[in-house]
Amino acid sequence: MALGALKIGAKSRDEFLERLREINQTLAATRPTARNLFRAIDRMQQVAEAGKNIEQIKKTLVDEAVKIHSEEAEATRKLSQLGAELIQDSFTIVTHCNTGALATGGYGTALGVIKQAKEQGKDIKVLATETRPLLQGARLTTWELKKANIPFTLITDSMAGYFMSLGKVDCVIVGADRIAANGDTANKIGTYSLAVLAMENGIPFYVAAPTTTIDLSLASGNEIPIEQRSQEEVTHIQGVSIAPEGTKAANPAFDVTPHHYITAIITENGIIKEPYIERLKKIG
Amino acid sequence: MALGALKIGAKSRDEFLERLREINQTLAATRPTARNLFRAIDRMQQVAEAGKNIEQIKKTLVDEAVKIHSEEAEATRKLSQLGAELIQDSFTIVTHCNTGALATGGYGTALGVIKQAKEQGKDIKVLATETRPLLQGARLTTWELKKANIPFTLITDSMAGYFMSLGKVDCVIVGADRIAANGDTANKIGTYSLAVLAMENGIPFYVAAPTTTIDLSLASGNEIPIEQRSQEEVTHIQGVSIAPEGTKAANPAFDVTPHHYITAIITENGIIKEPYIERLKKIG
Repeated sequence: MALGALKIGAKSRDEFLERLREINQTLAATRPTARNLFRAIDRMQQVAEAGKNIEQIKKTLVDEAVKIHSEEAEATRKLSQLGAELIQDSFTIVTHCNTGALATGGYGTALGVIKQAKEQGKDIKVLATETRPLLQGARLTTWELKKANIPFTLITDSMAGYFMSLGKVDCVIVGADRIAANGDTANKIGTYSLAVLAMENGIPFYVAAPTTTIDLSLASGNEIPIEQRSQEEVTHIQGVSIAPEGTKAANPAFDVTPHHYITAIITENGIIKEPYIERLKKIG
Repeated sequence: MALGALKIGAKSRDEFLERLREINQTLAATRPTARNLFRAIDRMQQVAEAGKNIEQIKKTLVDEAVKIHSEEAEATRKLSQLGAELIQDSFTIVTHCNTGALATGGYGTALGVIKQAKEQGKDIKVLATETRPLLQGARLTTWELKKANIPFTLITDSMAGYFMSLGKVDCVIVGADRIAANGDTANKIGTYSLAVLAMENGIPFYVAAPTTTIDLSLASGNEIPIEQRSQEEVTHIQGVSIAPEGTKAANPAFDVTPHHYITAIITENGIIKEPYIERLKKIG
């Protein structure tokens, strides 16, 4: 929004704000599920509406953007430090999708916790799910784990449950795109399955997310809008077709994990457990 | 084995049988998990050992091979008919991997049941999992479903649980590579996860397999050998790399679903439920 605002050549404050609202709407329409996006652009809009003149608003928007970014970075670093206390020496950790510096506004959420545990000198291993359809685990998480010198093994999404059943997993930790008031959490498709499998095998299941992910306006996860993406992301992998021509595919990008599967939610303001509905209100 | 036997140019019956044993061992070493393979080659070996002279043995082996094939075809057709009774009109069915005519010795197992339900005029829909790493669902099951005019949607393996949680799945049906005496079932990696997710969501989970899949010599699924395949099947999809160079991957080709997750096992000799340990002995 700041970059867009700098390019607006409006003649009046009203025209400027109107054009800024269009930029806001364009950004808001990119993705419906993640909460942080809406928090950030709403905050930018509010800052702009409170400004006196165009030049001052432009400067304020740039300052606010930098501030949001550094707050997010600070929040992820802090939640990673808090969360790392849950990771014990010799743990094997399952994580899903990418939640490191590549995906978040800072240090990382689930992957931040893992990196912090490593920085504390803990001897850990990661089972990274490839995360179909877009393979963020295979492409990005592996790259970040390698950079951080954390031993890892890439697995298909379908293997995580099997390794849990063999007793080879000590905890599961994932990020979140939106957390409803009752603790229900929307995250990358496949997260719900990992949570059910973790509970079935008596393995802790942690969600790591900054408080900007919390949406107290939604009573439960049923109200979280789930982005439906194109069929081609399923029928093709990196441009190569994997199914017969004309095959129809579903592609919900996220799913919702009901709160009772979540052992704890790790935020920069503390690690909380059930009843989430009271505790999220205090920190969200 | 029959084709191999026809090419043996041995001078004596003993030499011929020795060469046949080598062929047997070569075939046995191809894959460790599926039971049917060992049943078939053991049966061929026994028939050969009982033969009088080389020419007679060669003829007997060809006859026996044709017989095994037609028995397998008949068994899958019969179990498909029996199993189709479990499929109700308007069902949406999750299936995993390929279990149709392309993968079995005949009509199909899980996919046979689905095809039979369609032939009975039932209005059914299938959610076919792509089945990473080798994508048998995306490549083969979709093709067979299309041929059979059964409406289907391709999903990633990670989506099945989510659709179950939305109440959009009426049953899960899969094949089996080996069934231990207590009903524990080895099948394509990801099957265990589907079974846990089905139980969690109160959805019936069926295993469809001919009795040749049953291995009464193994007390439980813990004893079933699981084939570990190459890392490249995970780090590459159809020859295209999906992970950074040097990424290590796990690739167990199968997993084991404990019997208590299985609502029923569908065989050509009947549909059985717990206690499997008694009922499998009667039909296996």
